[in-house]
Amino acid sequence: MTDPAADPLREDGFLGGRLRIAQPARGYRAGADAVMLAAACPARPGQSVLELGCGAGVALLCLGARVPDLALTGLELQPAYAALARHNAQENGIPARVLEGDLARMPAALRAESFDHVIANPPYFLDGTPARDTGRGTARHEDTPLEDWIGAGLRRLRQGGTLTLIQRADRLGAILSALAEKAGAIKILPISAREGREAGRVIVTARKGARTPLRLLSPFILHANPSHSTDAEDLTEAAQAVLRAGAALAPVGPDFR
Amino acid sequence: MTDPAADPLREDGFLGGRLRIAQPARGYRAGADAVMLAAACPARPGQSVLELGCGAGVALLCLGARVPDLALTGLELQPAYAALARHNAQENGIPARVLEGDLARMPAALRAESFDHVIANPPYFLDGTPARDTGRGTARHEDTPLEDWIGAGLRRLRQGGTLTLIQRADRLGAILSALAEKAGAIKILPISAREGREAGRVIVTARKGARTPLRLLSPFILHANPSHSTDAEDLTEAAQAVLRAGAALAPVGPDFR
Repeated sequence: MTDPAADPLREDGFLGGRLRIAQPARGYRAGADAVMLAAACPARPGQSVLELGCGAGVALLCLGARVPDLALTGLELQPAYAALARHNAQENGIPARVLEGDLARMPAALRAESFDHVIANPPYFLDGTPARDTGRGTARHEDTPLEDWIGAGLRRLRQGGTLTLIQRADRLGAILSALAEKAGAIKILPISAREGREAGRVIVTARKGARTPLRLLSPFILHANPSHSTDAEDLTEAAQAVLRAGAALAPVGPDFR
Repeated sequence: MTDPAADPLREDGFLGGRLRIAQPARGYRAGADAVMLAAACPARPGQSVLELGCGAGVALLCLGARVPDLALTGLELQPAYAALARHNAQENGIPARVLEGDLARMPAALRAESFDHVIANPPYFLDGTPARDTGRGTARHEDTPLEDWIGAGLRRLRQGGTLTLIQRADRLGAILSALAEKAGAIKILPISAREGREAGRVIVTARKGARTPLRLLSPFILHANPSHSTDAEDLTEAAQAVLRAGAALAPVGPDFR
């Protein structure tokens, strides 16, 4: 695993440059998945949000940039990433509390709290199958099973609170099994690179203790061109709204029916 | 539950009139779901197929109309529907063996066999939530949980054989939980009434004993118009191919990658 403290940093722009995020140039670096995760969280002003495995803080800070007056908390295993998240929060003027710790051994300070929302982008290599973008390096918390991420998230939610995850689409079975009996009102948003393609990612939201039936939503399509032909930007309007303009992901938001 | 023996029959056309199927005028009557189920089964000539809960035989006979030289077997709880399925097979010139029996107490004749493919359209009212088309009447086998349908199907498959289901999209969690550890190469095909709408149904295929990752496919869209404005036919080209011309549902077929 890359140690970001020993690695040169680079600054990446998010939300059309509204957020400037320092990340390791060579280690794990958050991208569109973190932005979409934040866009899918139905937090309203004044509510509390915990991110499990917040890394350099991209998702947490994207959420803070969209929704005012949130109480943001990040939990991060690696001290160097936790320090980066604190640095990034400060540099962007978004208040956030970042704790170092292992979600599998939840710090006592967090065990005493419950949150309105929990978000997480668990690593994509758990089952030994490499993700397609292997050049992106090693993800974090690799040794913690996906089920434990979901269990830890549900335990930190108040009754009726919302868990929001982004994950490889092929882990959908494990996600739904881990949510069974504990959460309802599950919404699955498939994320497809292009129209007509199978989903590469899913965003799953669920409400702790709810009994409302599951909904499988129409896919969110990232790219407008039928195939990848040039390096030119070809994001769909919906993807531009979320990734560049910081819009909420409407289909999973609180007002969507 | 309607007794089809005491009920007037009507004849419905399927696959553009290629199949004529006698069904109770007022009881449970199969429709597009049965046709799509048949279209999604990746059976090849010479293979064996078992349908659990075959009703009047629509899915089994649609499959027989598309793929030649199949050994078709239907299991049906209600003797009157089993008799109808036999009648419909004969009238359409498609050889099929139809057994009366309860999938929860599998007949000995079937327990001794294993099949290349199992298909099923389990009833949609198991959890007490009525389906939207309540006017369609009562489904069959209502007292058998969805998990038992899947378990019975998997037990009747040879290793590597394919289970194909169509079901309400909100039961996806129960379906994936029942398949976990026992089947892989799961493909989920969302079925949406219109572009941009959430899925009303899912077709799920899985291979017994496989370990290949799950795939969440691009939705199959039934209607071309953005909203239901007239009674005129507005099926998409893809839906016409499956429902009227008897084509395979390509995305879940054996050659699709």
